[in-house]
Formats: sequence, structure tokens, C-alpha cells
Amino acid sequence: MSTRFKTIALIGKYKNPDILAPLLSLAQFLRSRNVEVVLDSLTASNLAENEYPAMTMEEIGLHAHLAIVLGGDGTMLNIARKLAPFGVPLVGINQGRLGFLTDLSIDTMVETLGSMLDGRYIAERRMLLCVEVSRDGSAVFSALALNDVAVSRGIGGNMIEFEVRINGEYVYSLRSDGLIVATPTGSTAYALSSGGPILHPSLDLIALVPVSPHTLSNRPIVVGPDAVVEILMHRTVVALVHSDSHSHFDLQEHDRVIVRRSPHTVTLLHPSNHSYYRMLREKLGWSGLPRNAA
Amino acid sequence: MSTRFKTIALIGKYKNPDILAPLLSLAQFLRSRNVEVVLDSLTASNLAENEYPAMTMEEIGLHAHLAIVLGGDGTMLNIARKLAPFGVPLVGINQGRLGFLTDLSIDTMVETLGSMLDGRYIAERRMLLCVEVSRDGSAVFSALALNDVAVSRGIGGNMIEFEVRINGEYVYSLRSDGLIVATPTGSTAYALSSGGPILHPSLDLIALVPVSPHTLSNRPIVVGPDAVVEILMHRTVVALVHSDSHSHFDLQEHDRVIVRRSPHTVTLLHPSNHSYYRMLREKLGWSGLPRNAA
Amino acid sequence: MSTRFKTIALIGKYKNPDILAPLLSLAQFLRSRNVEVVLDSLTASNLAENEYPAMTMEEIGLHAHLAIVLGGDGTMLNIARKLAPFGVPLVGINQGRLGFLTDLSIDTMVETLGSMLDGRYIAERRMLLCVEVSRDGSAVFSALALNDVAVSRGIGGNMIEFEVRINGEYVYSLRSDGLIVATPTGSTAYALSSGGPILHPSLDLIALVPVSPHTLSNRPIVVGPDAVVEILMHRTVVALVHSDSHSHFDLQEHDRVIVRRSPHTVTLLHPSNHSYYRMLREKLGWSGLPRNAA
Amino acid sequence: MSTRFKTIALIGKYKNPDILAPLLSLAQFLRSRNVEVVLDSLTASNLAENEYPAMTMEEIGLHAHLAIVLGGDGTMLNIARKLAPFGVPLVGINQGRLGFLTDLSIDTMVETLGSMLDGRYIAERRMLLCVEVSRDGSAVFSALALNDVAVSRGIGGNMIEFEVRINGEYVYSLRSDGLIVATPTGSTAYALSSGGPILHPSLDLIALVPVSPHTLSNRPIVVGPDAVVEILMHRTVVALVHSDSHSHFDLQEHDRVIVRRSPHTVTLLHPSNHSYYRMLREKLGWSGLPRNAA
Repeated sequence: MSTRFKTIALIGKYKNPDILAPLLSLAQFLRSRNVEVVLDSLTASNLAENEYPAMTMEEIGLHAHLAIVLGGDGTMLNIARKLAPFGVPLVGINQGRLGFLTDLSIDTMVETLGSMLDGRYIAERRMLLCVEVSRDGSAVFSALALNDVAVSRGIGGNMIEFEVRINGEYVYSLRSDGLIVATPTGSTAYALSSGGPILHPSLDLIALVPVSPHTLSNRPIVVGPDAVVEILMHRTVVALVHSDSHSHFDLQEHDRVIVRRSPHTVTLLHPSNHSYYRMLREKLGWSGLPRNAA
Repeated sequence: MSTRFKTIALIGKYKNPDILAPLLSLAQFLRSRNVEVVLDSLTASNLAENEYPAMTMEEIGLHAHLAIVLGGDGTMLNIARKLAPFGVPLVGINQGRLGFLTDLSIDTMVETLGSMLDGRYIAERRMLLCVEVSRDGSAVFSALALNDVAVSRGIGGNMIEFEVRINGEYVYSLRSDGLIVATPTGSTAYALSSGGPILHPSLDLIALVPVSPHTLSNRPIVVGPDAVVEILMHRTVVALVHSDSHSHFDLQEHDRVIVRRSPHTVTLLHPSNHSYYRMLREKLGWSGLPRNAA
Repeated sequence: MSTRFKTIALIGKYKNPDILAPLLSLAQFLRSRNVEVVLDSLTASNLAENEYPAMTMEEIGLHAHLAIVLGGDGTMLNIARKLAPFGVPLVGINQGRLGFLTDLSIDTMVETLGSMLDGRYIAERRMLLCVEVSRDGSAVFSALALNDVAVSRGIGGNMIEFEVRINGEYVYSLRSDGLIVATPTGSTAYALSSGGPILHPSLDLIALVPVSPHTLSNRPIVVGPDAVVEILMHRTVVALVHSDSHSHFDLQEHDRVIVRRSPHTVTLLHPSNHSYYRMLREKLGWSGLPRNAA
Repeated sequence: MSTRFKTIALIGKYKNPDILAPLLSLAQFLRSRNVEVVLDSLTASNLAENEYPAMTMEEIGLHAHLAIVLGGDGTMLNIARKLAPFGVPLVGINQGRLGFLTDLSIDTMVETLGSMLDGRYIAERRMLLCVEVSRDGSAVFSALALNDVAVSRGIGGNMIEFEVRINGEYVYSLRSDGLIVATPTGSTAYALSSGGPILHPSLDLIALVPVSPHTLSNRPIVVGPDAVVEILMHRTVVALVHSDSHSHFDLQEHDRVIVRRSPHTVTLLHPSNHSYYRMLREKLGWSGLPRNAA
């Protein structure tokens, strides 16, 4: 049986020699299924000479029907942001403990991917956010985020101060360690540690989660996907904006951080027995026995 | 200028003599605007003889184009559930501190309502939940909720135990004081006190918020409006289900509490200068000054 | 080598046939160590005729130098309250997963207890609370608690309202699902589920932990062991006071619930390799791997 | 009536011209009470020539019987740390909203201080922490803290990783935004925003409060004042340690941050009608009315 994924790109965690052997064995398997295999050029540069063509991320975006990422959720976030503009679906394979985004195990990947190539998979579309920092009317920073955009204090010991507006309407002013603007995908990451709710990933929503807010009654707010969230920096000596805890940018007083839904989405493919709630139970330790009466 | 609300029902907080005088002066004002005024029969029974026809809640549902409630949010919840099947829009007037649902002040009601009769208002549709308790295959209890459905321990000193399923899929088992299944309207009520997120009322969402969960990593989950939430009661000596903290029913082991979106909705009318975020700031005390450095 | 524990009482979980065989084998072992073994009369009544004298809890209190409890933390709490006035130290053996108070395993109990009889143990003194309900000037209820005293709503759907005073000074008024007044021992039980801090059990402290407080800025407060905590019940249709989630009493409006340190303490004996922090890690799941980046 | 405070130092908030006039009028009042008034030399340098001798902080520490601070809680923290080694008691006067540490109002300071000079005051002793960073066996940083010592990520987007030991015993490993080690004084500051408990200031305790912990079941722990808390930095690109959100130091992998009780304490003098719980209610907004039923 032939698959609709004629060309598949393989992308390994950056500078991780452990994934090279499984990656090559995976390539061989895919070729046995008459798939055209290409390698991400960074990954290829870590491999000995081989028969698979190397491509830049942009070329992968233009030519591949599927990208398979070997690594952790961090690698997956990184690749997802890069391929989002091209609409290439993604599968994540984790060499260690399964991740929220990398839910295939390296041990069973051949069998599971074989089944997925036969069409037995679940496709899940995830929203992304884009962030832009506006200073004196000019955009001085922009980035894409699959998990979250976070404004936070940097090396300063004091809380930062900012004002939040949604669709132009004033929401609140806050002193805090920061503010996380998260997607449903990001709701189980940093936002969860800061007291945010778990948002089912099938939903298009934006959560605003304060980090250590000075106003004790300030709580996470969930708004619709078309909300334009504006964070206006006040009396702030040092502050940063992060996208997916990754790229960061130094903010100044009066900077406006504007977060909105990205026009792009990411499609994740899961094995057909994938269960979001099972993943929550396993990753959050909900399966644990009661800790008991005293 | 004539209004589209030809017939308006006035409903006062049950057994509250203080609202009778404002209610009559409101009736007089509405009549001066050529509105046909009717009174809820319970309210009417507390008034001296007067010129306004009394109607049961069902008659109001069938005939009124608008219902104005004088009371607090508790009264509003109660009336909203009763009128939901009829689709009559609601306005809430509070004699004391404004509520989330009763956002007109008794002091300025004539002026504000005059403006609303002229068409200057914001209409907001709110989802409701319905709950059914199934025992040995039969429905033994059912109710409607605008805020929330809560399962909780009653007089027992121990946590209750239950299993949660969503759309038939197992989510988690939990020992806790209870579980709140809340609408966006209810997200600022009981669920907020138990650590749930604020959900913008324009959204159709369902939040599951545990109360004092034994599993410390259990967190609020937000799912889509079409989720069917099933709570299966385990080894539980005493447990209760509440709808809007109001009607309650004694649960037994093996009972299944099924919560889903109601086919009905409630439409709330707000003055045109209504701001949800301002209401949050005022009611949650976000306007407060910083508590300071030490 | 002879032990200072000349007479040891064995107490089994009530109506639990599974602990009877281990209990008898433990009795035999103790006798082989020249210990005089007595049985709690309730436990004895579930055993076939045997050679060990049965004693009431009071007789145990007066004659035993040590009480060994086979059961879970719930049984241990129960026995600890009963023996507290007599100062008999306690050892807890758990047949299943170890508890906070029952930290010997049934599988290794003979070896561990042998070592403890030789003097290799850690003795830990724990404070208790006593609660008294005062109505119209008379005490209508009193109880002892090793974990906590909790005031909570019973079958009512609404929050209860009460006022808290400490040493006669007004602290706050609150609407909530309840208030937990916990010892350090209880700080890892119900209070922890409601957001209270973990208090090291070597400390004598009292924690006040609100359950689902309506005032979102209300937070747990920790005070010294000599604080007299008074909870004055307001407009409350139904409310309850619990001691160790066990005995309960129906409260009325104007009742005063007075919680203070008990003059009694409980001494727990642990194996000499006991580690409180290891127990926290194991029971709270802190040993878990990171849940990962996304 | 003469006062036991023969020599009183006046210290103003740094570079704040608004407090200069009240400071001089306070000086005049104190002199009228036969008190010898001295000025902190930094404060004096902002004043026009005047009759009061200027002293360094060390001279104040050696000669003054009382130091009066005009400013906010931040200024008070700063001065308290500097004078702690000398044991000079402190009074705090706030020009704006009262603080936790600066509880006299500038408007009523003359009257209140007059009464305090007559002996009508409450003296409260507060514990301090000292922090030392040990690198390759050498102390590379040390500081004193009245509120807290906090380890936190700096400009890095990722959580920091560290291991906590108390008195040499392993407690837990954590990935988080940081860890706050707070005194009871600091329990109402940064630690409270991060979910820590309020510790009555009369107690000598140390609270460990995680900031956005990755392990969701990690909770604040309260230990006794003699606990030596050691934070061992793991795989950490960037991390900082702060004392009272003030001085900071860049941490490296393998650094050990050691926090313990300082041998010094600070004595705060309050007016005799001072109430800690009233201050909590006012500063945390507990006096607010219920937010209502919906």
C-alpha cells in the first residue's frame, strides 16, 4: 500500500549524536515503503556521508509532505515554528520519556509509523501566536510561538509593571514576575506551572497567566482566539519577552508587546490510539495512588 | 420613540420588601413609555393591590419580551434558569453592590433603562448546563445550571471519590472535596474560589475545577461546549450534586452524574457602556494599589 | 538484649481480617523477645481464642510502654487521639503503601521492630489540637485532633460565613467552603489539598487554611502554638465541625468553635533510618521526571 | 517626661525631595522633646545647611538609640539590613499608603511619635537571613536579608534547575523559575505572590517557596529557624541570587547558595495601637465585600 506522504523529511535534535543511528534506520524503513526521504541539512551535517538528500528548512517546507522530528518537545517546538508557514504536518519521536508533542517512542517507531503511513493516524491542528514589540511606533521584534509568549523580569530583583489591554480595552495593570500568554498547546507547559488551566488542544483559545502577581486576586483569564493582547510596559528597569522560552528580546519602558493569533497553524499527526487524557495522566502523575489520611 | 420590548415582566427578589417601592416606580416609568407591564405572581403577592396583571413564570416566558429582575445575582440565576426555555432576555438591577449578572444600579435604573428601551444596549448570550443523575439506568434527578454543577461531599468528613469521563473517554479518578463543572458565567463564582480560570463570557466552554484535590497535580481543565462530562461516584458514603449552589440531590455509590450543554441559552442585556473587564476589576479588587515592598 | 518496652499493645485496623495473621506473628516475635504482649480488646474480639490478654484502650494507656498499630494512617490517627492522654508512644505498621504516620512495612516489620526494640529508633513528639464548640455559653461539643479541626458547609449549597479571632483579636470574616485549623502533622493531609504549606513536624505551629475562600486574597496563615483560634459562625444554614475528618458536629448560627493546643502530645517512634523529606518526596510524587518542554 | 531614646537618627528615602520638609519638622519636634537629633549623611547631603550633625550609617549604629526612617518599605528594608549589626531599633514613617514595615503616617507622625517617646509602643524583634554563595569552596558572595533570599532565572527563557538540602539532608530537586527563602517578615512580600503562607512575624521560621515549579505537587515548606538551607545549582545557563529583591549576584553551575538565620535581628517599634491582623486586612484587601453569587 502506498502512502500519501510521498516525501518525508527527517529532522534530528541539534547536536545529539544518539539520535543518528535511529534516524538512519528510520530512513531505511521509510525508503522500504517507497517514501522519498530527505534530511534536514543541520542533521545531515552531523551524519557520515549517506544516500539521502539534505534540504534547508525552507526546502523541506516547500517539498516535504511530512516532517518527522527525533528529539524532545523543545526540538519539536523549534521545528514547528519554522515549518508552520509551509503547512507541513509533523510527527514527533522521543528517545526518552514521551513528551506532549513527541508522543512516539523510538523503540516502537517503525511499527507505529508503518501504521500511520497506512493512514491510521489522528491529525490535530494547533494554533500559534505571533508577538510583535512596538517601540515609538516601529516594530523592533517579532516572533512566532506555539506554546507561549512571556514577558518577564530579567536580572532585576523587582517585579515588572505593565498594563494589559485586550482588543483595545483596558483589562488591568499589574506588578508581577511576568505574564504568560499561552495557547492550548502551551497550557501544559510554563503556564501550568504558574497556575494556569489546562486548555484542551482542540480549542482555539488564549490564556493570560500572571506569574507571582502582586495583586493576590489576579487570576488567569481565558479569551477567544481573535483577542489582540497588548502589554504596555511601565516603569520597568529590565524586562524581557520570550517566545516558547526561546528567543528573547530586551524590553524598555513604553514598549508595547502585541500578541495575537498567527495566521499559521501546525498540524500534528498522532498514532490512532493516541489519547490526550492518558498523556495528561501520565505526564502529570495523576495515576498515583492516594497519599493517604495523615 | 417606541421600544421593541412591548411587554416587560418585573420580578423582585423573593420576600424582600425593600425592592417593592422601586419596583412600582419602575413599573410606572415603563408604563409612561407605553410598555405593557406585568408582574411575576410571587412578587405580586407581596404587593398591595395594584393595576398590573400578575403572571406565572411560564406565562411570563410565553408573553414577555423582556424580564427585569430586581435583586442580587442569586435571584438572577434563579429566574434565568426558569426563563431559559422561553428565550426571554433579562436585565438585572441590583439594590446594593452591583453583581456580575445584575449590573444596573437601582439609583440610576430609570435613566439607564430608558436608554436601553431606545435600543442602546448590548445583548449577550450565555450558555447553560444541564445535569442528570443516572441510577441503575434511570434518571433520578435533573436540573439546569447557569453557573455550575458541583458534586461535593455532604456531611461526611472524608473526601469523596469519583471517576471523570469526557465523551466516554476516561480522564481521571480523584479523591477531593468535590468537582465543579462551570460555564463561563460560573467561572467568576464558586469555580474561581477553587482555583479555576476566568473564562470570557462570550465563549462557550466548560471548565472542570477540582475542590481540594488529594492529587496535588490535578488542575482545572477547560473543554469545548459539546463535551459530555460524566462523573461516576465511587466508594462514597455521602455526596451531593448542586446546580448553581441551589437545588441539591443525594448521590449514592455508582450514580452517574452527567453534565452537558443545555439546548437553552440565556440572553442578558447590558447598558451600552457595559465593560466586562471593568466589572472584573471592581468586583475582584484589581484596582487596589500595590501592597508594597515588605 | 532486653528492651525498655516491657509491655507492648497490638492494635489492628478495625474489622480488617487481613491484619490478623501478621498481628499474631508479630505477637509471637515480641514474646520471643521477652516482651509482654497485650491486645486491644476490639482487635482481640476478631481473633480466635489465643494466649494474649485483651485490654481496653484505657488499660492499654495505663499499662503499655508502647502501642503498635497495624493499619493505615486513619487507624493511627484514631488510636493516637485515644492514647494521647496516657503518653504511650506509638509505632505504625502499614500493610499497603506506607503512610505519613505508619511508616513500617508489614513485610519487614519483624526485622525493623527488632532493631527498634534494641533502641535504634527516632522518637518524635507531635502536638495535638483540642476543639470545643460553645453555644450560649455552654460547651456542646469537644474533641481532640492530631491532624486538623475543620469547619465546613454540610449539605448546603452555599458557602458558610464566619469570623476568625486569634487570642481575642479580630482577624477576618470569610465566606468559604470551610476553614481548616491544622497541626504540622495535619499539614500534609487535608490542609495541603486546600493550598496550605507543609510545616515540618518537629515544629509546634497552627495553620489556618481557608477552603475555596470567596475573598481571593485570603491566604493560609501560620501562627504560634499558643494561639487560641476562635471561629464565630455567622448566617449559616448548615455547617459542621470535624476533628481529623472523623467525628462531626452540627453547628448553628452564633456557635463559637474554639481551637487551641491540647495539653497532650503524641510520641511517634520511627526506625532510625527514617527521613521526613524522603517520605514527602515519595508520597507527593516529587521524584517524578520533568514533564517536559511543551 | 524624658525619653530613653536620647539620640535619634533621621533617615530619609534616597533622592526623594518630598520627605525633606517633614523630616526637618520632625527633627524640630524631637529637639523640643530634648532628643539629640542626627541625620544620616546621605539624607543630610540633600538638605540645605542645618543645625543637625550628619553621621554615616555606621556612626548611627554606634551612637543612636533609635532610627526613624521616612520612606517606603523598600527604604526600611535597606536601612534595617544596614543597622541590624548594631541593634538600633527602628520606626518607619510612610508618606503615602502605609507599608508592612512603615506603619506611621506622615500626617500624624508628631502625635504618634510623641506618644512613643513617652514609652507607649510595641517592640517587635524580627529575624534576618544571611546568604552566602560558595564556589569551588570559596565564599564569592554574601548578604543579609530581612525579607527573603531568592534564586531565580535571569535573562534565560528556561527554568533553572537546582537541588535543595536542609541541614545536609536532601529535600528535592526542582526545575522552576526560582526559589524564595523567606522570613516571616518576607512572608507577606514576594513569597506571598508565589503562593507562600503568611507567617506571623513573632515567629522565627524559614519558608521555602518555589516560583512556578515544574513539579506541580511541589509546595511551600516551613522549617525551623536553625535550618541551614543549601541550594545547589544544576545545569543552569543563567541564574541569580537576590537578597530582599535588591543586591544580586550571577550564579554558575555547581554554585552552592547557603541560607541560614543571621545572628542579628531587627527591632521594630510600633505605636501601641498597632495590630498586625488589621494591617493584613487593609493591605491584602480582606475588608472587601463579597463579590457575590454569580
